[in-house]
Amino acid sequence: MDVGNRATRLKPDTDRLRSDIEALSGFVDETKPGWTRRPFTVWYDRSRNWLAERMREAGLTVHVDAASNLIGLLPGSDPSLPPIMIGSHTDTVTGGGRFDGIIGVLAGIEIARLLKENGIALRHPLEVVDFTAEEPSEYGISTVGSRGMVGNLPDEMLERTDASGLTLREAIARQGGSPEKLAVQARKPGSAAVYLELHIEQGPVLEQTGHKLGVVLGIVGIHRYRTTIAGEPNHAGTTPMSMRRDALAGFCEIGLAFERLCKQTYAADVVGTIGKLTNEPNASNVVPGAVIFDMEIRSLDTSVCEEIYRAFAEEASQIAAARGLDLRLEPLSKSEAIPVEPKVKERIYEACASVAPTAMLPSGAGHDANQIARIAPIGMIFVPSRGGRSHCPEEWTDFEDVAAGVEALARAVLSFDDAPAPGGEA
Amino acid sequence: MDVGNRATRLKPDTDRLRSDIEALSGFVDETKPGWTRRPFTVWYDRSRNWLAERMREAGLTVHVDAASNLIGLLPGSDPSLPPIMIGSHTDTVTGGGRFDGIIGVLAGIEIARLLKENGIALRHPLEVVDFTAEEPSEYGISTVGSRGMVGNLPDEMLERTDASGLTLREAIARQGGSPEKLAVQARKPGSAAVYLELHIEQGPVLEQTGHKLGVVLGIVGIHRYRTTIAGEPNHAGTTPMSMRRDALAGFCEIGLAFERLCKQTYAADVVGTIGKLTNEPNASNVVPGAVIFDMEIRSLDTSVCEEIYRAFAEEASQIAAARGLDLRLEPLSKSEAIPVEPKVKERIYEACASVAPTAMLPSGAGHDANQIARIAPIGMIFVPSRGGRSHCPEEWTDFEDVAAGVEALARAVLSFDDAPAPGGEA
Repeated sequence: MDVGNRATRLKPDTDRLRSDIEALSGFVDETKPGWTRRPFTVWYDRSRNWLAERMREAGLTVHVDAASNLIGLLPGSDPSLPPIMIGSHTDTVTGGGRFDGIIGVLAGIEIARLLKENGIALRHPLEVVDFTAEEPSEYGISTVGSRGMVGNLPDEMLERTDASGLTLREAIARQGGSPEKLAVQARKPGSAAVYLELHIEQGPVLEQTGHKLGVVLGIVGIHRYRTTIAGEPNHAGTTPMSMRRDALAGFCEIGLAFERLCKQTYAADVVGTIGKLTNEPNASNVVPGAVIFDMEIRSLDTSVCEEIYRAFAEEASQIAAARGLDLRLEPLSKSEAIPVEPKVKERIYEACASVAPTAMLPSGAGHDANQIARIAPIGMIFVPSRGGRSHCPEEWTDFEDVAAGVEALARAVLSFDDAPAPGGEA
Repeated sequence: MDVGNRATRLKPDTDRLRSDIEALSGFVDETKPGWTRRPFTVWYDRSRNWLAERMREAGLTVHVDAASNLIGLLPGSDPSLPPIMIGSHTDTVTGGGRFDGIIGVLAGIEIARLLKENGIALRHPLEVVDFTAEEPSEYGISTVGSRGMVGNLPDEMLERTDASGLTLREAIARQGGSPEKLAVQARKPGSAAVYLELHIEQGPVLEQTGHKLGVVLGIVGIHRYRTTIAGEPNHAGTTPMSMRRDALAGFCEIGLAFERLCKQTYAADVVGTIGKLTNEPNASNVVPGAVIFDMEIRSLDTSVCEEIYRAFAEEASQIAAARGLDLRLEPLSKSEAIPVEPKVKERIYEACASVAPTAMLPSGAGHDANQIARIAPIGMIFVPSRGGRSHCPEEWTDFEDVAAGVEALARAVLSFDDAPAPGGEA
């Protein structure tokens, strides 16, 4: 069957998508700001029931896996092929919005509907997954469900407790999962043909460059460090400027150096941020004695992160020495970048470009795709975020843009369904 | 009588001073760090009783005034003359030390003892004052007692309450004061011949320049401002460097400009400090959306403070504009500088230089002298603070240095006692 021909028949119903988004935004904790649906809560349960119902209506067979992910399955015509997986999440941060994650799950359901309505059968099975607890959870862990699916949820994590003393293991069980079967059910590399996720950009690039769709080049790696600048707390009135060891003034110089190093890097996708800082003793009449700050560097090429860090460490040491300040640098965490394979990028770009003006950009945030990359090639499509905002009540994507994203995703699914088996394209 | 001759007989007893300092450091709240004796507490009451006893032993007549200041009076031989006043305070900040304020009150008592022991009678009455609550109190007011003495404790302040709901008016009454008599007892300009205070430097200048005594040139004026830098909080991963409005990066540039302006000023005594800042939302993965910081500029010449502020405001505005940040500047408070009259400075310098190597320097901190300046010429003598530290348990001044300060103060008292009446020297 001709992909182009089939593809033009998969036109998402914008009103139906809008109505789905609005329905889901009704299952929220109204005592919290924005649209708050935290995992493992009664609001999450209700939204899951509603989602399972929509999956069944769309012709999917619904089950909950060991990690408590909600999965809708559409069998394929060739039983020998692994599934094409579409997924995202419907939990939100506290005070979050109505689009982040949500549109990715609804896209999967809409695509199942369109396939059914148009009588199109796929060769591959299609799985639509609502991953459990993608956002940072009460357990200090994010992407809980996708971790669980690929066997990356060790006992140490399962034994962590929330404020009420409930373990993550218990929370997953209450959510319908079977923690005791996590190891048995853990999916192996090659167990999915491809993983595709539609997500809001959460940044300003598509909007500011006038694109409606974005093909994700990869998910950046993140290197985080903590820096402590120690000076001497002194009386702000009695200590002459020349006799000070002012930790905050030192921070100003060091912070500017960091910004300059991140901006001057040739790799355009590098971002570096000092987001969090503590000033001590933080009294208006005391010369600051210590500043502790966290910084992070993100890039698709983590060797660039290393390079910037090395240059920063050297420059910061020189600044501190010249000011009589003590400097301590400690790594906090390092996550590797997740590349999108060139062939996958190309197929997705083709699908997107046939629908709307398309840019290519990195994902600066992490996603469930980070975990699923352990078992399958991944690919992501972004739609614009108004003002680049996300994780806040103002988070917004026009429904027409959501529909364009779903249409591009549907075309990508058909394209991968027609592609040779993994490895066959090489 | 010859001043020089009398003066050489007034040799403070270092062991007695050490023993007094140690005795007072026993009246402290041992549940708090350092040597904590907050005003209006049981520990303050006990220290006051002990002090009153020492005053009586030294031949002083003791009373508590309307503002609850503890005053020891030694009559003079000429009933027409106003008193020479020596004063300081014995309350401490929480976690404070054993010298700040304390040595000034003990110096007055020691001088009364020396006069008595040497049979020296002054022409002027001598008042030794332990001012109530000089340090910032629970009521958000400092120099409570000296304010009260000069009629600068308005009802608005008296009606403020501490955490338990007690008003300052009630606290003063409990401390033995008579708030209803504050207006009647308020001292008028000219009601003291001179006010002299011995204090620790609270800074590193005497120690680092090898001086044992410091003559205070004046008490600096303090101009305080609050600056708000508003940018846009954005996802640290998804917002390219070129699309950011990073309030903290802007602060770095603005903070450095402030430091440079304060350092480059010709007036050597200028100090400028950014001591307190808030970064919002202060999360490691969010580009800072707002920074609010308090800055202060101190100088004996407040026109210099104004000049620096004007230059800062202009430069900060340019920096903010170039970065797409919004800037708001608001004045918080302005206190005028308190000059020490040239003739007073000269007399004190003579007294000090006859005892030990003496420097002249501004007082960067406020004192009870700020208030008493409303009714009398003021003068201050500083003794070294080890490492420039104060308001902390490590606060330290060698007992020999305290004794040198007391001796210089005694000589100054004799010198002013012999001086013509106020105005007579002009």
